Amino acid sequence: MKLLKTLLPAAALTALPVMGMAQEAAPSMDEVGPYIFTTLLFLMAGFLVFFMAAGFAMLEAGLVRSKNVAMQLTKNIALFSIAAIMYWLIGFNTMYPGDFNGYFAIGGQTVLDPVGVAAADAALDYASVGSDFFFQLVFVAATASIVSGAVAERIKLWPFLIFVIVLTGLMYPISGSWQWGGGWLSEMGFSDFAGSTVVHSVGGWAALAGVIILGPRIGKYKDGRVNPIPGSNLALATLGTFILWLGWFGFNGGSQLAMGTVGDVSDVSRIFANTNMAAASGAVAALILTQVLYKKVDLTFVLNGALAGLVSITAEPLAPTLFGALWIGAIGGVIVVFTVPLLDKMKIDDVVGAIPVHLFAGIWGTIAVIFYGEANLITQLIGIAAYGVFTFVAALIVWSILKAVIGIRVSEEEEINGLDMAELGMEAYPEFSKG
Amino acid sequence: MKLLKTLLPAAALTALPVMGMAQEAAPSMDEVGPYIFTTLLFLMAGFLVFFMAAGFAMLEAGLVRSKNVAMQLTKNIALFSIAAIMYWLIGFNTMYPGDFNGYFAIGGQTVLDPVGVAAADAALDYASVGSDFFFQLVFVAATASIVSGAVAERIKLWPFLIFVIVLTGLMYPISGSWQWGGGWLSEMGFSDFAGSTVVHSVGGWAALAGVIILGPRIGKYKDGRVNPIPGSNLALATLGTFILWLGWFGFNGGSQLAMGTVGDVSDVSRIFANTNMAAASGAVAALILTQVLYKKVDLTFVLNGALAGLVSITAEPLAPTLFGALWIGAIGGVIVVFTVPLLDKMKIDDVVGAIPVHLFAGIWGTIAVIFYGEANLITQLIGIAAYGVFTFVAALIVWSILKAVIGIRVSEEEEINGLDMAELGMEAYPEFSKG
Amino acid sequence: MKLLKTLLPAAALTALPVMGMAQEAAPSMDEVGPYIFTTLLFLMAGFLVFFMAAGFAMLEAGLVRSKNVAMQLTKNIALFSIAAIMYWLIGFNTMYPGDFNGYFAIGGQTVLDPVGVAAADAALDYASVGSDFFFQLVFVAATASIVSGAVAERIKLWPFLIFVIVLTGLMYPISGSWQWGGGWLSEMGFSDFAGSTVVHSVGGWAALAGVIILGPRIGKYKDGRVNPIPGSNLALATLGTFILWLGWFGFNGGSQLAMGTVGDVSDVSRIFANTNMAAASGAVAALILTQVLYKKVDLTFVLNGALAGLVSITAEPLAPTLFGALWIGAIGGVIVVFTVPLLDKMKIDDVVGAIPVHLFAGIWGTIAVIFYGEANLITQLIGIAAYGVFTFVAALIVWSILKAVIGIRVSEEEEINGLDMAELGMEAYPEFSKG
Repeated sequence: MKLLKTLLPAAALTALPVMGMAQEAAPSMDEVGPYIFTTLLFLMAGFLVFFMAAGFAMLEAGLVRSKNVAMQLTKNIALFSIAAIMYWLIGFNTMYPGDFNGYFAIGGQTVLDPVGVAAADAALDYASVGSDFFFQLVFVAATASIVSGAVAERIKLWPFLIFVIVLTGLMYPISGSWQWGGGWLSEMGFSDFAGSTVVHSVGGWAALAGVIILGPRIGKYKDGRVNPIPGSNLALATLGTFILWLGWFGFNGGSQLAMGTVGDVSDVSRIFANTNMAAASGAVAALILTQVLYKKVDLTFVLNGALAGLVSITAEPLAPTLFGALWIGAIGGVIVVFTVPLLDKMKIDDVVGAIPVHLFAGIWGTIAVIFYGEANLITQLIGIAAYGVFTFVAALIVWSILKAVIGIRVSEEEEINGLDMAELGMEAYPEFSKG
Repeated sequence: MKLLKTLLPAAALTALPVMGMAQEAAPSMDEVGPYIFTTLLFLMAGFLVFFMAAGFAMLEAGLVRSKNVAMQLTKNIALFSIAAIMYWLIGFNTMYPGDFNGYFAIGGQTVLDPVGVAAADAALDYASVGSDFFFQLVFVAATASIVSGAVAERIKLWPFLIFVIVLTGLMYPISGSWQWGGGWLSEMGFSDFAGSTVVHSVGGWAALAGVIILGPRIGKYKDGRVNPIPGSNLALATLGTFILWLGWFGFNGGSQLAMGTVGDVSDVSRIFANTNMAAASGAVAALILTQVLYKKVDLTFVLNGALAGLVSITAEPLAPTLFGALWIGAIGGVIVVFTVPLLDKMKIDDVVGAIPVHLFAGIWGTIAVIFYGEANLITQLIGIAAYGVFTFVAALIVWSILKAVIGIRVSEEEEINGLDMAELGMEAYPEFSKG
Repeated sequence: MKLLKTLLPAAALTALPVMGMAQEAAPSMDEVGPYIFTTLLFLMAGFLVFFMAAGFAMLEAGLVRSKNVAMQLTKNIALFSIAAIMYWLIGFNTMYPGDFNGYFAIGGQTVLDPVGVAAADAALDYASVGSDFFFQLVFVAATASIVSGAVAERIKLWPFLIFVIVLTGLMYPISGSWQWGGGWLSEMGFSDFAGSTVVHSVGGWAALAGVIILGPRIGKYKDGRVNPIPGSNLALATLGTFILWLGWFGFNGGSQLAMGTVGDVSDVSRIFANTNMAAASGAVAALILTQVLYKKVDLTFVLNGALAGLVSITAEPLAPTLFGALWIGAIGGVIVVFTVPLLDKMKIDDVVGAIPVHLFAGIWGTIAVIFYGEANLITQLIGIAAYGVFTFVAALIVWSILKAVIGIRVSEEEEINGLDMAELGMEAYPEFSKG
């Protein structure tokens, strides 16, 4: 309904159906204000996290070679779309069962609040179902995006998308329910505010399983040497990083799950400030460290340093002081600089650095909770291990089945010619001759 | 005023002029809360829809050849700017007259609320004029962007911009007033929540008239064959699609026109969830369908599938269930895959697929309202036809006059060399040699 | 905490720690609503302004040659990160001392509100410290971004970053305190709503000092002629401009510093509408003027015209009518078209046009306040001069020291080969052969 109500003739106004205020018994703002604010928080945080899908797409498109860019773009828009459908079909109600201490229970489809829900029928101490569903949905897509980057430049499209179906419909929601669904890890006191472990390390473990089963790209490790394969477009990679940084304000800020009191909105503010600080210090740490180690600053490390800072603060973005956020994020940046070459030494070929950023910094962030939050180290390690074992094993199984049944890797010739021509029959930049 | 008020010496505080709270008689939140929330909805939705201008620019820049990219960018920033001026000068008050059942009445300039408007003088049951104007303004620009993409790669700059003046100052506001200004279609019961017809099909009809008058690009249809002309930068096209998807949360969500009650904010949440679902299912439908039909997934179809899903749900993003949004959006995606080749068969050369996405999916979405909304099919068809006849005929006339008087198409040589050099004397990517 | 509260078993709910509503004495919305709204304004405006960092990065990456793109990207993400740290360490409390009429006082680290701050302990007539800090922090980064663009394509990385440390930690906060910290200019009645002078001209003055000390790029002024050096990617430059335009709604809108009353939220709406209008008219002015002067529209001037329109309205985005915003912004666009060649005549080589856009239009905007605001011309000129003298002299000193001690310019050979290889050892677009 897009009528300018104040200017409408009275007759038309009477004819208006469910347009809010009119029909309702008008409960007071004291009663409904917090619900409106928290719902708004989910919508705002939700669209910010949604936009991270674009951030991952640009980051990954920038860090692969131009012959694989269209494929990377296709994977990213497809994975988000599949995640949206799977999370509606099964994921959301698997993850937030509420009435079971769930290990492997599987839920049904998401049902929204009715149109124009009355205050009496709404969850006034929380938020609308639609906003909550939307907010949780955009998180699951992030997990799949993490995998997408790591396995780039040699995976087939459809096996990847089938993996995404399993990851977003089953693996993520089941393990997510252990903590955010009120399951056993939550009861044990495991602490992971916005998902250093529940989201990021889960994506990292799934990615690790994938790259191990897939094997490295042709030419990456040859004659005992590591051959760097530079990304084709660092402008897009930088744009992607900035978009992810932006989205993270929603990712962490929205995870406060409430905005209707002075305490809650102030906590969201603390989270914004801390999230920003951790990203900044992660970037600066990588900036300084690459200068010291390699005598030249490395932009891709700075980008991944910022992202690692963000992942590091995600397990506890509220409790730390700004100085706490600074050093937690900085260690995230340091971790990336040291673990990217480490993976290469192990011949684990992670194209965009997703495993250092999301898995290693995710573990670090989950441990760092003990310095400012109320968690204890043992519980945190149990949680980290539980997510690691479950996700890694499950992902290994799924990847292996896919490999055995339909194959997950393109042929050598297709890989050399580029996945764009092989899998899509099109190029991302058809007019630009390659150097 | 950017003073940190809480830290200011009392003397300075007294000196502060119109800085809110102080002077007002402080009406209760029960009285003013809904106004503040709804105004905030318009601002938030408005900046999201504003950003769609960047989305259209990137989508179109990515889907044209590199020799026409600077031109496409120029058209997009210019059309938004012109739309902003025309909508202030005449459009807003033409569209929202309130006091006439308007066919062709023409309004005057927009006047905002006074600075620091008192609660007693504000439209407390709605929102501030500035926020409403801003929100409506960004819609009209979308209409012009749709035309921009279809007529790309052969149109002259200034005739296009003159068309934009007429479209945004007269055509769109006049026809828009029939429905959203409380005019005859609204009274008849036509239903178009956020503008599948009022915005998207109007843009599509204007585009269709344009491409018919212009004729196809040189070489597109030769010797009875359709020659595909691939876009120069699919990374930008994908970015543009994600930005449009983001903006659509504002486009549809803001069209609830209210956020100050439990029912309204929950409805906005429903709209977010449904909008996202329709985009996802449109993308997945195109993904699967191109695989089945062409044996390879086609990224540009997936992008347009997501957009078609979004257009399809725009006429009724509130009433459907999530499953309803899924199948409505999916049919949108299917429509695009089937109608793009259809247009080519008719030698109608729509460079970016704007007509399938915005016109055909827009018509579909307007019909689909009957399945969940309260509309009936006949009324919906009357509305679709009314917008179609008026816009198509008016656009044909304007394009024809422009063609006769100043010419709308560049010369053959200029088209072959690219519009960037011909019309702007510059290149978008001057350093990259063309393949 | 990411539990779906409404579905949780009662036992788990009791165990929840600081999750809002529960523990608080529940002050009424009349008491806390304005605080929540204003805090929300800062968060929303803050993330929009944050995103301007991406806008500057894309604009500048698009306007330099491809051999310097990675360097420009590195500078932009690094400067934002450094600004974030310096503003926490010293800037925020230097700028907003409150208890001194500050010239050169230097503050300490920022301390946020405690977690879950009680209403009784919060600044209920303002906003949470975290949101305010975040909002102010993203402003200072804009200042540094302005410098980054002007000095591009020949500056060394580390000297630039050291300059950023001084600019964001000392220069900007000290001079900012004169006005926004309640200092002497504020007391004198100087008016600069969102920072045409305090932010934009400060960045412009620092940039001017930098390009003078640095000297022009090799080949820019040769044999008495000005050689245009076109940017490598106008699509990115356009994207950057749109992102900046988007961010400006936060930049100006958030500077209302309040959103909790009818008057304040309506004023924010006025600001959105006026900001948009000024950008549009700046773009249109440049569009028409370049057509008239050069017989061809120049896209980079249109982009800079929009930005100049935005800078022009920033000193007073609230008071003008929409028509006022139109002509103020249009003059901004005209200024850019005339002063870019002027700088070239003086052999001042400003790569992206930052000085015309941010300094010249910033001065214009600060003067234009007298037409709609309450300022008088003399006071405005005093403010402009004070910021100019202080910033330009301080910047000259810092640049000169840096030049003398470590050198600020790469070698001739490095400049010709490109800064990306020289300073970073990597390329932004390694696969695309250069034309």
